[in-house]
This record gives sequence, C-alpha cells and structure tokens, in this order.
Amino acid sequence: MARLLRAAATWGLSPWRGYCSRVRQGELSEDFVEALKAIVGSPHVSTAAAVREHHGHDESMHRCQPPDAVVWPQNVEQVSRLAALCYRQGVPIIPYGTGTGLEGGVCAVQGGVCVNLTHMDRILALNPEDFSVVVEPGVTRKALNTHLRDCGLWFPVDPGADASLCGMAATAASGTNAVRYGTTRENVLNLEVVLPGGQVLHTAGQGRRFRKSAAGYNLTGLFVGSEGTLGLITAATLRLHPVPEATVAATCAFPSVQAAVDSTVNILHAAVPVARIEFLDEVMIDACNRYSKLNYPVAPTLFLEFHGSEQALAEQVQQAEKITQDNGASHFSWAKEAEERSQLWAARHNAWYASLALRPGSKGYATDVCVPISRLPEILVQTKEDLKASGLTGCIVGHVGDGNFHCILMVDPEDAEELRRLKAFAQQLGRRALALHGTCTGEHGIGLGKRQLLQDEVGAVGMETMRQLKATLDPRGLMNPGKVL
Amino acid sequence: MARLLRAAATWGLSPWRGYCSRVRQGELSEDFVEALKAIVGSPHVSTAAAVREHHGHDESMHRCQPPDAVVWPQNVEQVSRLAALCYRQGVPIIPYGTGTGLEGGVCAVQGGVCVNLTHMDRILALNPEDFSVVVEPGVTRKALNTHLRDCGLWFPVDPGADASLCGMAATAASGTNAVRYGTTRENVLNLEVVLPGGQVLHTAGQGRRFRKSAAGYNLTGLFVGSEGTLGLITAATLRLHPVPEATVAATCAFPSVQAAVDSTVNILHAAVPVARIEFLDEVMIDACNRYSKLNYPVAPTLFLEFHGSEQALAEQVQQAEKITQDNGASHFSWAKEAEERSQLWAARHNAWYASLALRPGSKGYATDVCVPISRLPEILVQTKEDLKASGLTGCIVGHVGDGNFHCILMVDPEDAEELRRLKAFAQQLGRRALALHGTCTGEHGIGLGKRQLLQDEVGAVGMETMRQLKATLDPRGLMNPGKVL
Repeated sequence: MARLLRAAATWGLSPWRGYCSRVRQGELSEDFVEALKAIVGSPHVSTAAAVREHHGHDESMHRCQPPDAVVWPQNVEQVSRLAALCYRQGVPIIPYGTGTGLEGGVCAVQGGVCVNLTHMDRILALNPEDFSVVVEPGVTRKALNTHLRDCGLWFPVDPGADASLCGMAATAASGTNAVRYGTTRENVLNLEVVLPGGQVLHTAGQGRRFRKSAAGYNLTGLFVGSEGTLGLITAATLRLHPVPEATVAATCAFPSVQAAVDSTVNILHAAVPVARIEFLDEVMIDACNRYSKLNYPVAPTLFLEFHGSEQALAEQVQQAEKITQDNGASHFSWAKEAEERSQLWAARHNAWYASLALRPGSKGYATDVCVPISRLPEILVQTKEDLKASGLTGCIVGHVGDGNFHCILMVDPEDAEELRRLKAFAQQLGRRALALHGTCTGEHGIGLGKRQLLQDEVGAVGMETMRQLKATLDPRGLMNPGKVL
Repeated sequence: MARLLRAAATWGLSPWRGYCSRVRQGELSEDFVEALKAIVGSPHVSTAAAVREHHGHDESMHRCQPPDAVVWPQNVEQVSRLAALCYRQGVPIIPYGTGTGLEGGVCAVQGGVCVNLTHMDRILALNPEDFSVVVEPGVTRKALNTHLRDCGLWFPVDPGADASLCGMAATAASGTNAVRYGTTRENVLNLEVVLPGGQVLHTAGQGRRFRKSAAGYNLTGLFVGSEGTLGLITAATLRLHPVPEATVAATCAFPSVQAAVDSTVNILHAAVPVARIEFLDEVMIDACNRYSKLNYPVAPTLFLEFHGSEQALAEQVQQAEKITQDNGASHFSWAKEAEERSQLWAARHNAWYASLALRPGSKGYATDVCVPISRLPEILVQTKEDLKASGLTGCIVGHVGDGNFHCILMVDPEDAEELRRLKAFAQQLGRRALALHGTCTGEHGIGLGKRQLLQDEVGAVGMETMRQLKATLDPRGLMNPGKVL
C-alpha cells in the first residue's frame, strides 16, 4: 500500500545529496524488521534516519529517496533469504554497492529494503592462466587491481570512480579504456544473481569461466546493464588482461573539434591500438589550466594513451603524431615514465573537479550521450550552441574513440529555475543524440532520469519487449522499482 | 495437431544429408499455401519434395526433417506478414540462411514453414567512418568482405563456411579470428528481428549504430545465439575492423599437447596480439600431410597468424618464436607473402577434407566443447584416450586461444551401431568439458543434439530462466520448435 501512495518524484526540483530534508519514518512493520535481523543478524540491519538517508542517493543530482531499512548481508545465502522474504511480503529491494552511480539507480522511490553488498568483499577465485577472476559484490575496481599487482594481469575497465565491479556490471559501466579493452559488457564471463524470489542463478552455469560459448540464451548479457531491476548480482566472473609492458601518454591541441575527431577516426582506421583517446573542449582545458595550474593551449585537445612493448609504442606514438599533425594538431607532447605521464594527464584526471571549480559552491551533473563517431563533430558544435543558449556553465569531455561524451554542467542545487534549464538541456541533448542514430546513455545507464528518452530510443516494440522481460523475471515489480522502465 | 503427432526423433540413428528416405507430403492446407503465395508471390513458395528435403537438414549428421513448405520472402514486410500468418494458424516457422549449420538448427522437427532468407541479400548501409555496416540476411561473410574490399575495412569473424552473417548472429558463430577480434557476439551492434507474431523489433532501436550503450536491457545480446527460437533476424548492423597493413603466418611443432598450450598461454600473457592461434593434433597433421602432400613433422602443432604494421609484425613473430622455442617447439617457420602464407596454412584450411579422406566414403561430425584454457591439456589427453577406446576415427583441431576445440569424427552414416558410439563419445566429451568448468558448445550452438548437455551446463534455475524467456517471447512455441530448450 505504502509504496503505491508514494509519489515517485524524480530529479530536478528537489534537494541534493546531503540535503535530504524530510526522511520519512521507516514504513516496515516491526515484525518485518525482526525477520530481516533473523537473517543477517541485528548489527547488520539499520532503520536509522542517517543511514537510510545515506543510502537514498548516489553521486548524481537525483533527490535523496531513502529506503525504509538497510541490510548488510554477509553471503549469498543471506541475500537469497532476504529476497525471498521481501518477495513474499511485497517489499521493494534496492541493491547498493559503492553509491557512485550517476543516474539515481539507488534511490528508493517506493521505499523498501536497501541491500548493501559491501560486506561481501572476497576475491573468490583467481585463475591467472585463464585470465579470469571471481569477485563478490563488495570488491571494487581498485581493490581488485591491487590484488592482481603481482600476477601480471589487470581489469582495465575504468569508469573513473572506484566503483564495485558488480555495480559496474549492473550498469554496464565503461570509461576511458573501452576503446581498446571493451566495456564491462565484454569483460563479464559469468554472474551469480539472486532472483527476486530468492533463487540463485548462475548466468553461464555454476563455476563456469570459459572464454566463449554458444549454449542457449545469453543470460549474462541480459543481466549486465539491467541496473538491479532483474535481480541482485552477488558474484561476477571477470575477464582479465595482461598488464602492458610499457605505457606512453600523449596530448595535442587542435584548431577545431572536427580536426580532433578526424584524427581519432584516422587513428582507428590505421589500426593503431590506442588504449585511451579522450577529448576535452577548450572550456574544459581552460578550467583545467586554472585548477591544476597548467598551461595547455586553450583549444580542443586529445589526450591519448598507448599500451604495448617498448618497440611497438615507439611506432604507435609516431603514427599518432603524424596523423594528428596532418589534421593540423600542434603542441604534440608525450611522456613515458609514470610521473611524467600522470603530470601530462593531470588535466584529464581532474576534469570533474576543475569543472566544479569554475563555479564554487555548485554541484555537477554529467550528460552521457553516445553517437556514431562520424556524427560527433556536429553534435559537439550543436551542444556548445545549446549550452550557450541555456545560460548554463559547462565543459565537454569525451571518450571520443567510442563516440561517447559528457557535458559536465555546474548548477546551484537550490535554484529550481536553473535545475529546470539543466533538465531541458539534458533532454534536448538526448534527443539530438537519438536523431543522429545514437543512444541517450553510453555508460551511466537509464536510472530515473532517462526513462522517456529510452522509449524514444528503442521504440514501442523495444519497450514492450523490455517490459515483458521485466514482468517475466520480476512479476511483482519489486526489484529496484521505478528504474529503467 | 500434426505437429503434436510427429515424434521429434533427433540425431544418430537416421539417414544423413541427402539420404532423406521418406519425405512426407506437406501437411499444410491448400488455403494456407495460397495465403503464403499471396504474401510472397507464387514463384516464391514451394512444397516440392526435393525442395523441402533440401531445406530439412544442415551440414551436420542430424537426419533430414523437411518442412511442409519453403518460402522466399523479398523484404521484411513479407517476413512480418508470414510470421503473423503462421502465428495465427499455429504453424511452426524455421529460418533458413545458407544451411551451413552444424547442430541441426534448420531441421523441421514439427514440420511447418521454412523461411529461406537468401533473396534478401542487400547491403543496406555502409558507414566506413563509423566502422559499421547493415546487411540483410542473405549476405554472406565472403560477399560482405568482397564488397568492403576498397574501403580498408573487413568483418573478421570467420567460422570457415561462407555462412550468412545473420545466420552467424543467430548461432553466435566465431572461428579462427575470435582470439583477436571477438566472436559474432562482440561484433553485432543492432539487429532487426521479426517476432513470432509479426512485430518488427530493432534490438538497439531503429537505425542505431553506436559503439556502446547502457540503455535498458541488452536485447541485441539476447537474440544473438538464440538459434531462430525467438524470432527471425532480417537485418544486422555489424562492427567492422581496419584491414591490417600486413599479415604473417607461422607454424611450429611441439613435443606435447601441454607444450603447445603452455606456449599459447605465454603468448597471450605477453600481450602479443595474435590474430589466430590454432592447434592441430598429430593425427590431424598426419592426415593433412597425406591429403595435401605436405611434410609437417607428425606432432602437436600450432598455426599462428599475426596482423599489424610491418614493424609490429617483426616483433610479434620474434616474440612468438622465442616463447614457443622456450616450450620446446621445433620447425618454426613463417611466411609473409599471400601465396606463401596460404601454402603454410594449407594444412589448417583443408583440415576437414583431410579428415574425411582418412576414411573414404565416411561423413564427418565435429564436437565443439570449450574449456578454460588451463584445462585444455587434460581434456585433450582424455579425449584422445576416449577416442581410442571408442574405436572411432578422429582428429583434433582447436581455436586454442579461446579454449575451444573440435574433434572431427569420421563415421559411416549407414552404420547405426557406429552412430551410437559416436553419440556416446560426443556426450562424454561434453560432460568432461562441463566437469572442467567449460561449455558443451563454443560456437556451433545447442540445436538438437546438445539439449541435455545444456541442462547440465546451466542447471535448473538457468533452464527455468531460459524457458521463461522463450515462453514470454514465443508463447505458442512456434519459432524453430525443438531447438535449444
């Protein structure tokens, strides 16, 4: 009942992270809370307002919507029993990893139980010869790579945040390395998922860690990117890659957006196996210069990274330099040693904070469209015009090799009118991407804010198919309700 | 009714391709056949026995089970109307591409209408800058690559046969290049699918061709590998890759299977970007020597191929040679020019025919398990022992970089007892792969013969989930019935 009565007000007009003004009292019965405690133990259940508030938002601008209770299961059996309990009682379940999502995926729009999975943080199996590892949902990207340090392997998908790997699977995260190593999608071999009723599914069969298969429907692929709406991911088998022998970073400035994108296409066409190729617009570069006291030319800029043997790298850098210069690039510089590299890439690494510093006291919001790479120049030019017309402050940074870019916007979270302009801008950008054969989200997910755009993107038959899948796997609509669809 | 009365007898005990002894009369009403003709035109419908027989089998040992009629639609609208008609009338639909499948995917086990999609053979859109192309289901792999010849791009997935690209998507085909470029799965960006009731679904949204997305459920991934059991694929948007500047082929012989596999792991660990790495056992090499009049050392052998710039290739070949020699390899030889390369790889290319020539008059059957690469040596050794114990004739060839290998078995299709031994051997091999955390099929699919193994592979919850998806998308069970589940 309670969940039907609650309006699922979403983003744009309400207080920000930490500004969760009216935390409702939990609406779960005492008996139900006792049943939760019986499963995970009293210390691992909380209905405290501060705890619920903390779990009611991610890093985005979506307003805080706290769950009625937070639980910390210790193992998959407990997750299964929690799911079965909630399912029987008609209580929503919201999976929670590191809370670093950007589309409100953890907001408890209908209340319910937030399942914080961070206590399950073991690396269950490492098979270096098979380039695979099995992790529980509390293991983050950085923790895994620290663990792998001595075996010559790494997990290269890098969304920026130190997100949990199962959370990355849930949102199909990617980031700067995807152009070379693929997204999370291409690097998940198997998932353990607790289904809404409590059954435990191994999407590729229990314990399996083969590189490829043609055995039945691709359940792994279905759950990657499902944003917690079909089940709770309680373990992931991931594909690992060899640590490159050497790394070179490079940057160069361009006379125009078109020249930067043309260089990217040419580099990809020449089969230069670039590991990262990132675009920053001149506003972003200016912000970075101010923030990190750098002196990059204020112009559209590419940041590149190459992975390979010493000998292969020399050739790759030479090829990239030649291609970018043919497209009018200047100020090509590169660095090999770790410290130099990190200095060279400082601008890119600090892009988010540099943006925020443009307008002290503001909060950031990142758009996330992705278009066919040939359409990047026109959408970037349009977006800059829209930005100007909107009166908003914003910079552009993009994973240009994939056609994916973010417009980082700085807004005053207390200014309802500005938030409305922000929302209008983001919706318009989404529609522009769709008109250019693109997607409204390359890597952040649909969450709360892009549900209308999703409909425009996949059409009536696509939506109907997705709704049927949801209704089949979660007939009571209790798994992370209000998200995606 | 008719479909319920027909026993879905499957493989092993019945006549082979071309030995379709008793082709039933079509069991469709005259009115229904007229309705088919009204949709696609009279010349594009056939109920002739020879035509139905031709469409009742693929290249595998599964016995011919002809459909009741064959239709050749010219466009997606006709496919949609055909699907709607069959759905209303409760008639099974079987999609048909080039008929080069290996698991009986086109056998009409319940009769029905075979939809031959080869008349839809246009390349609908080529976007070289975006590395993507849209093809109709009649376009084959080789036809596409011929079309691409002058634009510097190619579609690298190579299952051997000149299969249709949409058929490859339907079975999640891969082959020799997957270690470098991925399988069909990683190279499909979007699919147009006619659903059982006739609705047209664009899995990633109509006309979309972005490189990555996090927008809703991954419908593309769900339909890739669904073997025609969820819908008819009527167009595919594929990812293209730059044609390598140069190519080098190499081979070397090993003292043991273990040494060959260790070399493969070491090469992958060293991040040598090998494009193909194929294993042939000594029986296979011996057969190739006889068939192609070659003189390879009769020993476990690796065939390798490298793609890259001239300079990069020199280093890659040097690295591979060093690694294989450290593992005891001998007779390392390599070739750069096209003719020399094709001579060097002749053994691998003719493996199938060389196997058949070991026993003139026999037919071939290929197993298809895939295991974590570290388990390859033990399963290869076990398999060779099983082969000896079975009294069957067989060779082994494998995509060793993916852990996928085929045992090519030569049998007399008229010998029921031998077919029983073959079936027992294949089942045992499947179970061995499952025991080693592998899959019963790396790239051929489940089709008719591996349905029991699929249950063992994904378990009760996995099967139940797959059955739910099938029931949701094809509630009347009319799409390629009797396959996969």
